[in-house]
Amino acid sequence: MKIPFERMQQEFERILRSLSFSMAKAEKCASVFASNSLDGVYSHGLNRFPTFVNMVKDGLVNPHAEPEKIEANGSFERWHGHLGLGIYNADRCMNRAVELAKENGIGLVAIQNTNHWMRGGTYGWQAADAGCIGICFTNAIAGMPPWGGKSPALGNNPLVIAVPRKEGHVVLDMAMSQYSYGKMQEYNFKHESLPFPGGYDDEGNLTNVPSIIQKNKRALPIGFWKGSGLALLIDILVTSLSGGRSTKHITLDGKEFGVSQVFICIQQKEMQAALIEEILHYTKESGEAKPGGEITYPGENTLRTRLKNTAEGIPVNEQVWEAILKL
Amino acid sequence: MKIPFERMQQEFERILRSLSFSMAKAEKCASVFASNSLDGVYSHGLNRFPTFVNMVKDGLVNPHAEPEKIEANGSFERWHGHLGLGIYNADRCMNRAVELAKENGIGLVAIQNTNHWMRGGTYGWQAADAGCIGICFTNAIAGMPPWGGKSPALGNNPLVIAVPRKEGHVVLDMAMSQYSYGKMQEYNFKHESLPFPGGYDDEGNLTNVPSIIQKNKRALPIGFWKGSGLALLIDILVTSLSGGRSTKHITLDGKEFGVSQVFICIQQKEMQAALIEEILHYTKESGEAKPGGEITYPGENTLRTRLKNTAEGIPVNEQVWEAILKL
Repeated sequence: MKIPFERMQQEFERILRSLSFSMAKAEKCASVFASNSLDGVYSHGLNRFPTFVNMVKDGLVNPHAEPEKIEANGSFERWHGHLGLGIYNADRCMNRAVELAKENGIGLVAIQNTNHWMRGGTYGWQAADAGCIGICFTNAIAGMPPWGGKSPALGNNPLVIAVPRKEGHVVLDMAMSQYSYGKMQEYNFKHESLPFPGGYDDEGNLTNVPSIIQKNKRALPIGFWKGSGLALLIDILVTSLSGGRSTKHITLDGKEFGVSQVFICIQQKEMQAALIEEILHYTKESGEAKPGGEITYPGENTLRTRLKNTAEGIPVNEQVWEAILKL
Repeated sequence: MKIPFERMQQEFERILRSLSFSMAKAEKCASVFASNSLDGVYSHGLNRFPTFVNMVKDGLVNPHAEPEKIEANGSFERWHGHLGLGIYNADRCMNRAVELAKENGIGLVAIQNTNHWMRGGTYGWQAADAGCIGICFTNAIAGMPPWGGKSPALGNNPLVIAVPRKEGHVVLDMAMSQYSYGKMQEYNFKHESLPFPGGYDDEGNLTNVPSIIQKNKRALPIGFWKGSGLALLIDILVTSLSGGRSTKHITLDGKEFGVSQVFICIQQKEMQAALIEEILHYTKESGEAKPGGEITYPGENTLRTRLKNTAEGIPVNEQVWEAILKL
């Protein structure tokens, strides 16, 4: 079943309005949720929307809260999210980072007590659309043990790096685990094993079985000790720069709210488009490892999916869509 | 065989002076090379020094060059390294980023046509010693195929993130391959396999045999497609921000010189030391995966090795040390 982008966006907007979000917030939030599905990030689009609605109903997301600047130190500002709408807060922060970068070459906005931004890549595309390099990251509830450890103590803390490009931005949006829990669920639904080990079993051995990892929350950080270190540093950066809550407190609360985030923007007159093309071409010229394979840059498939889904409609699970219509 | 830090530094200084480096450059460079060995990063300390000397003799490093600011855009500056001493240029750039951050909260210095900085962590410790958060990265000669590709087209492009801390800075210094070529050489010398797959064999299958990867240069990026994407983005960032040479050109030249680098510094009055401690404790409380194991934060072992080697002397390979004395 396929649904046009505008149709999906309208439904989201209707529901958000009924949850007493302002028109501006409902529009922004509906557009981002629908865009996430449009871009093929289904786990953080339509499929996530019902969970988000429940968080609003449970009082974890305050529809009336506005983000507030609480401190300025030149081009580095600290904001407070007042447990408002994560998507709206993140959009506001990246916009502010763009302004700071346009004034001064580089800007950083750190926000505390905000909520889940859904797809981090959204704010990378936003910065790149504004002609800036955007870098952003967030912390999250613990879902990975640190290197050498047993219980989850690290968030999957995604890192986003976006570079503007006329033919299609280069946007890396990567979480720190080899597979997201959303991806593991997909494999589990299809009764398939993960192509590479995605975590540890209860005995501490690497495993490709998604259900085991979904249960024990011992997901594998990318590159073992390296991704473990990077996830830890991201938590330290967002927490110390925002003065907000770390993965520890988000985890102890048991529900993923009140997270900390950082948005960095860099602006330059000359974006060196020719140099970027040269790098992308060189990478693609490496030669396919397997016949018929393809080497893509981060963001390339996103754009391809966006164009396809714009033309053909967004593929949706019928049951999920029917449930949305009844909300 | 063990050599005191000061003794090693003096030898390096003597040799650097004989290569016509100024006293200031010789002192800085000798101190960094000796510190790398002191901190246990032997591959980029004493063991690397003879290779570095050859690069100077081959004219790839110009002892007389001074880095030069070529453009300023607020707190984002672009510098030219004039193919001078990589360590000296990197030190100057991180110092300048510290100054910019102290003026304006955040600063970025991008440098083109500089040379290998040896251990990236050096400049992370430098920023943290100045009370700042430091983030820096560099490109490098190709040593990894991109995800889905065959021939090496990505540099091992390390990423450094340092956070100041009274009890010992948190410093992540990670290259994008699962194992550095230096580490693979160590395993090869000991006739040991890598603990985890470190690259691909000539048929495109994952392998733990270091000699195969050393030969075909098909090292594995951390997290497969993820590390591949991050290595690519680092090359794009350093090249487009500095206007310098990308991994492509460094690789086509066949010798690793004239690289591009970025140094970012963030400064805040309140470093949130208590929040950082809380995160480190929470991580350590995860519980050892294996009895007797240990969970450490990035930089913890570095500091431990530094203290041990300061007290006992730096362990050196006798042949390498003898060769240094004859230089």
